[in-house]
Amino acid sequence: MAQRRMMEELSWDAFSSLPLEARAPYFLQSSGRPYHCVIAQQFDRECLDHLCDLATRIRRIAKSKVGMDFLSSLMRNKRAMLYFTQPSTRTFLSFFSACQILGFSPAEVRDTSISSEMKGETKEDTIRTFSSFFDLIIMRTPMQGFAEQMAWMISRTERPVPIINAGSGKDQHPTQALLDIYTLERSFEHTGGIDGKTVLFCGDLLRGRTVRSLSGLLTQYNNVKQIFAAPDCLQIGQDILDMLKAKGIEYEITNDFKGHVKDADAVYMTRIQDEWDTKPGESATMSYKHEDYWFTGDDLKNLSPKGVIMHPLPRRQEISTDCDDDPRAVYWRQERNGMWIRAALIATIFCRDQEITQYYMLNNR
Amino acid sequence: MAQRRMMEELSWDAFSSLPLEARAPYFLQSSGRPYHCVIAQQFDRECLDHLCDLATRIRRIAKSKVGMDFLSSLMRNKRAMLYFTQPSTRTFLSFFSACQILGFSPAEVRDTSISSEMKGETKEDTIRTFSSFFDLIIMRTPMQGFAEQMAWMISRTERPVPIINAGSGKDQHPTQALLDIYTLERSFEHTGGIDGKTVLFCGDLLRGRTVRSLSGLLTQYNNVKQIFAAPDCLQIGQDILDMLKAKGIEYEITNDFKGHVKDADAVYMTRIQDEWDTKPGESATMSYKHEDYWFTGDDLKNLSPKGVIMHPLPRRQEISTDCDDDPRAVYWRQERNGMWIRAALIATIFCRDQEITQYYMLNNR
Amino acid sequence: MAQRRMMEELSWDAFSSLPLEARAPYFLQSSGRPYHCVIAQQFDRECLDHLCDLATRIRRIAKSKVGMDFLSSLMRNKRAMLYFTQPSTRTFLSFFSACQILGFSPAEVRDTSISSEMKGETKEDTIRTFSSFFDLIIMRTPMQGFAEQMAWMISRTERPVPIINAGSGKDQHPTQALLDIYTLERSFEHTGGIDGKTVLFCGDLLRGRTVRSLSGLLTQYNNVKQIFAAPDCLQIGQDILDMLKAKGIEYEITNDFKGHVKDADAVYMTRIQDEWDTKPGESATMSYKHEDYWFTGDDLKNLSPKGVIMHPLPRRQEISTDCDDDPRAVYWRQERNGMWIRAALIATIFCRDQEITQYYMLNNR
Repeated sequence: MAQRRMMEELSWDAFSSLPLEARAPYFLQSSGRPYHCVIAQQFDRECLDHLCDLATRIRRIAKSKVGMDFLSSLMRNKRAMLYFTQPSTRTFLSFFSACQILGFSPAEVRDTSISSEMKGETKEDTIRTFSSFFDLIIMRTPMQGFAEQMAWMISRTERPVPIINAGSGKDQHPTQALLDIYTLERSFEHTGGIDGKTVLFCGDLLRGRTVRSLSGLLTQYNNVKQIFAAPDCLQIGQDILDMLKAKGIEYEITNDFKGHVKDADAVYMTRIQDEWDTKPGESATMSYKHEDYWFTGDDLKNLSPKGVIMHPLPRRQEISTDCDDDPRAVYWRQERNGMWIRAALIATIFCRDQEITQYYMLNNR
Repeated sequence: MAQRRMMEELSWDAFSSLPLEARAPYFLQSSGRPYHCVIAQQFDRECLDHLCDLATRIRRIAKSKVGMDFLSSLMRNKRAMLYFTQPSTRTFLSFFSACQILGFSPAEVRDTSISSEMKGETKEDTIRTFSSFFDLIIMRTPMQGFAEQMAWMISRTERPVPIINAGSGKDQHPTQALLDIYTLERSFEHTGGIDGKTVLFCGDLLRGRTVRSLSGLLTQYNNVKQIFAAPDCLQIGQDILDMLKAKGIEYEITNDFKGHVKDADAVYMTRIQDEWDTKPGESATMSYKHEDYWFTGDDLKNLSPKGVIMHPLPRRQEISTDCDDDPRAVYWRQERNGMWIRAALIATIFCRDQEITQYYMLNNR
Repeated sequence: MAQRRMMEELSWDAFSSLPLEARAPYFLQSSGRPYHCVIAQQFDRECLDHLCDLATRIRRIAKSKVGMDFLSSLMRNKRAMLYFTQPSTRTFLSFFSACQILGFSPAEVRDTSISSEMKGETKEDTIRTFSSFFDLIIMRTPMQGFAEQMAWMISRTERPVPIINAGSGKDQHPTQALLDIYTLERSFEHTGGIDGKTVLFCGDLLRGRTVRSLSGLLTQYNNVKQIFAAPDCLQIGQDILDMLKAKGIEYEITNDFKGHVKDADAVYMTRIQDEWDTKPGESATMSYKHEDYWFTGDDLKNLSPKGVIMHPLPRRQEISTDCDDDPRAVYWRQERNGMWIRAALIATIFCRDQEITQYYMLNNR
């Protein structure tokens, strides 16, 4: 694997001071497939298209028992560790399910009070221990950059294993961005794909890593307009806007969410991320009209008939439950898409993508 | 599935205000097999006999490695979620084992502090999320009626999955009642079955959902006498007595447990359910002689040679350990029966019962 | 099984008052294979050699997918319970992985707050419950002697299952000793094996059960010298020294760790076991120079070129990370050896060792 040799030449300080896009190639195999998955920036358009196609094939193969038997034979000789030290339901369960679909035996460490970190072990040693027993490490931590540092560290040992970042701090959550892309692809399958569409982001754009990652990946598509609707205190970071500007991407920032629903092909709602509050109650007492950033049954009539409403979930009041039965509300399907795209990612990391495609061509076409 | 269409026509308020027995048919498939398992009342005698027969077949098939290979091939393409937010050892483990026997890959959520409920998600959304990733939801919660409401809710979505109630509040624990019935069936296999027997219930009959469910199921058998031995403050609820009276079932309520052991074919002991105390120490300070409701080595000599002692476990002092070696002490076998009857239930829900029976006829008879 | 009949004749008091070596045969099958694994003393040289050979075969078979398919078919009809009520990462994960390699479906109970112990169940009843649903119990508890007592108890029931002690109190951790032996075997594979080597133990020798167990097993080999380097307050127990003396084993106790590195074939470092402190901060304030018992990059040059550095892990400062890249630092390999030797132990308990050896002779030689 090309990336391994390359990483060995760089100290962590040298590596981590490279710009994001310069770091991306280090996480790839020489075939161009991802080895580690740590930052959204490592996925180019070709890889995104590959993963979306593969996810759809896996999804269709999985409909039959014989297809599931095929899928679960692929990785039966491998073991995966899910190391989640931050609360999570759907990211955890969709990775767990993706592993099961491919035949992995998943193990989990979620509660560090029952592990050796209690005994003063460093986190580096803990991750290295996982690599002794498992063939894949999927990790979610509250520490920004930690998954990336562990990918760098493990690549230099005698027994490197792939590391997938399932969310690290306020920063990166690359597989969430992948499932969002896959959901947009499926939603616009019959209306020309993602190219040329308008995506309206709403909510806590400042602290939600989901929007930040997706915004970046959307720049790989042609003529996608991005609108950021949020109160000033939760508006998208200037770094994202600078990135869009540098790439010549059309965007808009606004306080008027409701007025822009009619312009959107996809409305992407997000939750107030008050777990990142720096003092108790900070989010709750922010002085803006919270309901202005909620999508309700009334807003459905302003949404294009071919439009979609997305949400990374969990939700609170930002989408009222009376939208749930509308066919344009795709957030439950979006959630399930996470399982398929993660299965596609893992299969690609372990170079089983061609085998799946061959099976699909023979049996499901 | 007939039940699904039917449920859609009713709001939750309309549905939940129906009497228990009127709700039961909504949980069935058009073939009469259970789809959801939420209340003991949904099982008629035919279904009970079917499940007991199937449990015995599964148990016998499982004795050989080739039989286990057959069983574990049945559901290998399905995934189950065990959502247990109330402490449990044996219900959890027997469901977990039953899933494994049938080849399901079980996942679990037990500690809500590591899940998205922390982030303000409603419980409805949590259950719906499980249905995105899993094909079966087995749930235990402290909230009365919650499993039933979730069965109603999930039946109205695009992706309904079966829900099994593994205990909800003080109310229902239908699979415990099934394993009790199966244990009685096995115990009286050579003495004419359950019909005509006398069951003596003892202990905390007020708050133990086990006895309430079993008492109801026993009415499906002919001429079963039920005796309820408890101090007045823990005696069986009037609603149960009214139900027995309405069905013309012979019963007796008494404070004299020890005096009735000689009359019983089955003695069903229960634990004081002090987790339901409304104030600390309430159970411990109730003014009755606790030892009067304990079964000890001395009581063994009053028990019929063909009688059995049952207990849903865990026990405290209500059965002394010097009874454990007596062949009539069937509570350990009863515990293991829970695994077999739950495997039978799940196989029936997924319509694999006939395949199991065919295998049994060919190989084990 | 011979051991079962024998145990039934003895009360727990009679059994537990036998000396360790007199208890050992009770844990064996009539074929001499282990049935329970509870104390290091039950393994004789023949059994140690057998387990090491088998571990190497399993390790090599596992390198291919077809080999893994063979291994995971061996125990697919069995279920294992990992009952760990004491924090653990690598013991837990290596047992978990060993179970998965052999095809066992592992279940776990780690947090007793979600189990029936909350409801006042005795620990004996909890273990007996596990035996209702599982075919193997692997347990780690803080209570000295508990695993042994449970092995005695379960052997007397209608449904005995093997019990493996994964650490009980300050006393026994037999599978850690097995993996240490296996690591020494592999390390000296080309230099004459363990016989005639010198092992230098360093650190908290008083409270580390690892060293105590390994010290005993090493007496099964010829002419192994043992050096114990520790401050007086943490020096090895007199009982161990008496045992060595009685067996005529050469040993030395010293405060001069650094000066003895040059004499050692294997340096066995250990962590200060402050979880056993009897008052807060006891270990941290012990009056000796802590750095005198740390292995650093400087010590590498005193170590024999064919020597090895071992550590049961987790480590703190007692081995500096700048040793990690030295080929003589085998602690990461040692950790992974735990998975292989535990798989070998479990396969032997279930009498699948010959099948593995036959497969190896046909396919991997």
